[in-house]
Amino acid sequence: MKSIKGEMMSQQVNRKVILKSHPQGALKESDFEIVDDEIGEVTAGSVLVRVDVLSIDAFIRTTLDGGGFHTSAQLGGVIPALGVGTVVESADPGFAVGDTVTGPFCSQSYALLPSVMLRKLDTSIAPATAFLGALGMATGLTSYTGIVYVGKAKPGDTVVVSGAAGAVGSIAGQVARLAGASTVIGIAGGKHKVDFLVNELGYTAAIDYRNENVEKRLAELAPNGVNLFFDNVGGEVLDAVLMNIAEEARVVLCGAVSQYENMADVRGPKNYLKIPERNASMLGFTIFHYAHKHAEAEAQMGKWLKSGELKVREQIEEGIENFPATVRMLLDGGHYGKLMLRVH
Amino acid sequence: MKSIKGEMMSQQVNRKVILKSHPQGALKESDFEIVDDEIGEVTAGSVLVRVDVLSIDAFIRTTLDGGGFHTSAQLGGVIPALGVGTVVESADPGFAVGDTVTGPFCSQSYALLPSVMLRKLDTSIAPATAFLGALGMATGLTSYTGIVYVGKAKPGDTVVVSGAAGAVGSIAGQVARLAGASTVIGIAGGKHKVDFLVNELGYTAAIDYRNENVEKRLAELAPNGVNLFFDNVGGEVLDAVLMNIAEEARVVLCGAVSQYENMADVRGPKNYLKIPERNASMLGFTIFHYAHKHAEAEAQMGKWLKSGELKVREQIEEGIENFPATVRMLLDGGHYGKLMLRVH
Repeated sequence: MKSIKGEMMSQQVNRKVILKSHPQGALKESDFEIVDDEIGEVTAGSVLVRVDVLSIDAFIRTTLDGGGFHTSAQLGGVIPALGVGTVVESADPGFAVGDTVTGPFCSQSYALLPSVMLRKLDTSIAPATAFLGALGMATGLTSYTGIVYVGKAKPGDTVVVSGAAGAVGSIAGQVARLAGASTVIGIAGGKHKVDFLVNELGYTAAIDYRNENVEKRLAELAPNGVNLFFDNVGGEVLDAVLMNIAEEARVVLCGAVSQYENMADVRGPKNYLKIPERNASMLGFTIFHYAHKHAEAEAQMGKWLKSGELKVREQIEEGIENFPATVRMLLDGGHYGKLMLRVH
Repeated sequence: MKSIKGEMMSQQVNRKVILKSHPQGALKESDFEIVDDEIGEVTAGSVLVRVDVLSIDAFIRTTLDGGGFHTSAQLGGVIPALGVGTVVESADPGFAVGDTVTGPFCSQSYALLPSVMLRKLDTSIAPATAFLGALGMATGLTSYTGIVYVGKAKPGDTVVVSGAAGAVGSIAGQVARLAGASTVIGIAGGKHKVDFLVNELGYTAAIDYRNENVEKRLAELAPNGVNLFFDNVGGEVLDAVLMNIAEEARVVLCGAVSQYENMADVRGPKNYLKIPERNASMLGFTIFHYAHKHAEAEAQMGKWLKSGELKVREQIEEGIENFPATVRMLLDGGHYGKLMLRVH
């Protein structure tokens, strides 16, 4: 049975970005296709959402190879992505038309989902996009969980963050500072990002991995070694930091964006034997394992956001058709802070 | 002032194996030289020890490159090695002639050391060589510490040990079983070693990495994944196990014997991203960090040794001149259990 809303919607199309082929190495726009599809029927327990903004996260790249590090995109299907949107039709009494919601909407302009996959947002706390960024599971909560629960940042720590100007990194370094770290060093690509980290986000110092020798520069900036490293990058950057870890250091493995286009032949950390040598550890985590901590983390992040102690930089691109190009931008590091895509 | 003992000793020589050149890749006997030297004078606070048996451990290889993973051997100097021996002259009231002692005696037939570097052994607990093996710091205590304190073996765990027929591995798997692991799987090279692990040491199963596909075989033997991996090997074996780790697995990095001849270009674990994917961790440790636990560990190991619950296999080669060949044997895996070299 279609509602009036449903009749209206049926005149709309669902514009989708689908996976045409598994990328061979670097992602190309030709690996995707834009197709217009009908909007499906809203059945009991499901909700139709107009996708307003999609979160462009590094994990997206890992879903494209089939059998990915996170979840997998199917050939001919939409690409996994988190988003915020507006309920346009609901067959669940818990969701009303007009509600702002977040969920795994994927690369499309309308998402029809079981209501259990949605979460209603309180936009009096923060604007909807903040729930993809500072308060989002893949961004702010990941940063907070990695620094506080996994990495156990302590007052006095020297903390290093790679991919420091990115969505997760730009928050992780600030969380470390707010948790009492005495020195917070960012690693990012280019002079502008280095300036952004130090001048806008309050990093103690930053290293431009494109123009500086990370291993040597870090030895100068952290002569007593790195206590906590929050790694978003992997590859050579991870190896350079491993050479500089202190005794009992914690290396938190959040991601490895440098490797996501070559998952069949990942560069393992050659210097991993610094871990036993220095009685250190490499700690992996998935945000889902810390679900019982999300409310606490979100509350703390919300406080810092309101007080202005936590600064957030968003970069919002436009148009569902630009989904492939925006993922490409993320992989190339051509953005600042939280990268998103406005769909409606 | 020389003692009478000193006069007697001066007629002896100290036969040493010294490092002639840093090995290029595989260790060759020509990297060493045998020289006879005078025995030095015993001054206040030092003790002269006749070296009876040396422990041949994998860490020895890492000391030869200059700037090693552990300590370093100097060109023209003796090679670091632990041993047991007999006091032949003492200028410290805490040590009497005839005492059985252990210490870092290095590759020589007599060791003259400050008394603080020695420890007197109670040979009523176990024969002297046991203090290099099951009760030795680099062997038994390393196994116990890695399995119990670092890896936190729990009843019901599926535990995998690589280098399982070696000195550390052959004990680590037994400690895991005694700590309640329900399944203990060893990885070793060759059919005879596999049989040795299962039939003599009580491993649940063993994989011959030379003739079996470790990744596939492990998937069959541990369908629910590996909870604890104690790695002595690194390289391809580490990667094969990483593909099979369970959620929240602990990978204890004890050593990487497969990499010790190529430390300038270590093969990092390509599959390290299984660590974040499965909320797991890679834990490094050095035995020195657990010094406060040594007495407890040694007491437990001593009990198991006496009760016969812990089985020890020793292989003792002969002659200080064979130090290079015995280290070579260790690296090639041509031995069972604890490899030692009788000097006197």
